[in-house]
Amino acid sequence: MTFVIRIDHVAIIVDDIDHALNFWRDALGLEVTHVEDVPDQESVVAFLPTGESEVELVKPTTDDSGISRYLHKRGPGIHHICFQVDDIEAALVKLRDHNVRLINPEPVIGTGGKKIAFVHPESTHGVLIELYELTPLEPEIRLARARELADRVRAQGQVVAANVLSFLRGLRDTGLGEFFDDDVRGDYET
Amino acid sequence: MTFVIRIDHVAIIVDDIDHALNFWRDALGLEVTHVEDVPDQESVVAFLPTGESEVELVKPTTDDSGISRYLHKRGPGIHHICFQVDDIEAALVKLRDHNVRLINPEPVIGTGGKKIAFVHPESTHGVLIELYELTPLEPEIRLARARELADRVRAQGQVVAANVLSFLRGLRDTGLGEFFDDDVRGDYET
Repeated sequence: MTFVIRIDHVAIIVDDIDHALNFWRDALGLEVTHVEDVPDQESVVAFLPTGESEVELVKPTTDDSGISRYLHKRGPGIHHICFQVDDIEAALVKLRDHNVRLINPEPVIGTGGKKIAFVHPESTHGVLIELYELTPLEPEIRLARARELADRVRAQGQVVAANVLSFLRGLRDTGLGEFFDDDVRGDYET
Repeated sequence: MTFVIRIDHVAIIVDDIDHALNFWRDALGLEVTHVEDVPDQESVVAFLPTGESEVELVKPTTDDSGISRYLHKRGPGIHHICFQVDDIEAALVKLRDHNVRLINPEPVIGTGGKKIAFVHPESTHGVLIELYELTPLEPEIRLARARELADRVRAQGQVVAANVLSFLRGLRDTGLGEFFDDDVRGDYET
């Protein structure tokens, strides 16, 4: 038993992220969580969640990728729709059993460690479909990213603490140090 | 303050509903809730919910509608994406303020009494967008439909009951009526 859980995202190819955000964010009112360079897809992607799905604005960053050729041939527009499935291997077996043409006969590891596979539009009535299964790897990769971010924030915090300490020392040197006892100063000694 | 709540549906134009269901239902595994003739959109639509959204397979039923011309010009594929918004009038005002070209400058009443408006792809980077606001009317219309269905089921039930009664009377006439007392027979008297 395999099933589709939800629409994960709808990917829209654009030729200019900022220009596209003028409509999708400023006029339509979607929130942007982040804009990310995705070198292995030769693109920059803006992520705009809505409900349990996302709109992804994709701008090609090279001239010879599939999405770049798509943009030049057909202009901006919806490129593909991605469905989250509970078991991508089982889904691909079932699709093969129904003689559906697959771009990826086996799942490939996509951004964030998720398993993905594309289905050919020839078999789907003109719609390029991405299937996606959340893997145990994906939360781990997200956790690693969060830890990196925490490390950066901590490092920045130490810079701030050093500046505060320098400021306090400056005050002490001006003779105003009497307002600060050792306890307070101790808070900024790293 | 206005905002987009979720993707309501993605509409895919197809030239044959049964053929399309071979992929979308049988191979991909989406459920079909119903297939509906929508005369005012000159189409037949199959509804396949997934998560909080739906895939809608749309087959033109006339030769001169917009979707029919779209099908002949571009072939089957994604036609539009529909977002539910909390306040469609406010959304249209905001879009106009951002010089977005609207196909429907004012909301129109769509299937089921909901308010809808289309945004021109020229302003959205190639994506035909439908906005949709659930109105108090829509649940009422759905309730009316549910009541019609209940009436039909009740009418069918009365046919079944009449058949059962006829069967019981047949049994009684054969002399086997002793197995059925008045209470049981009373259950089938309508």
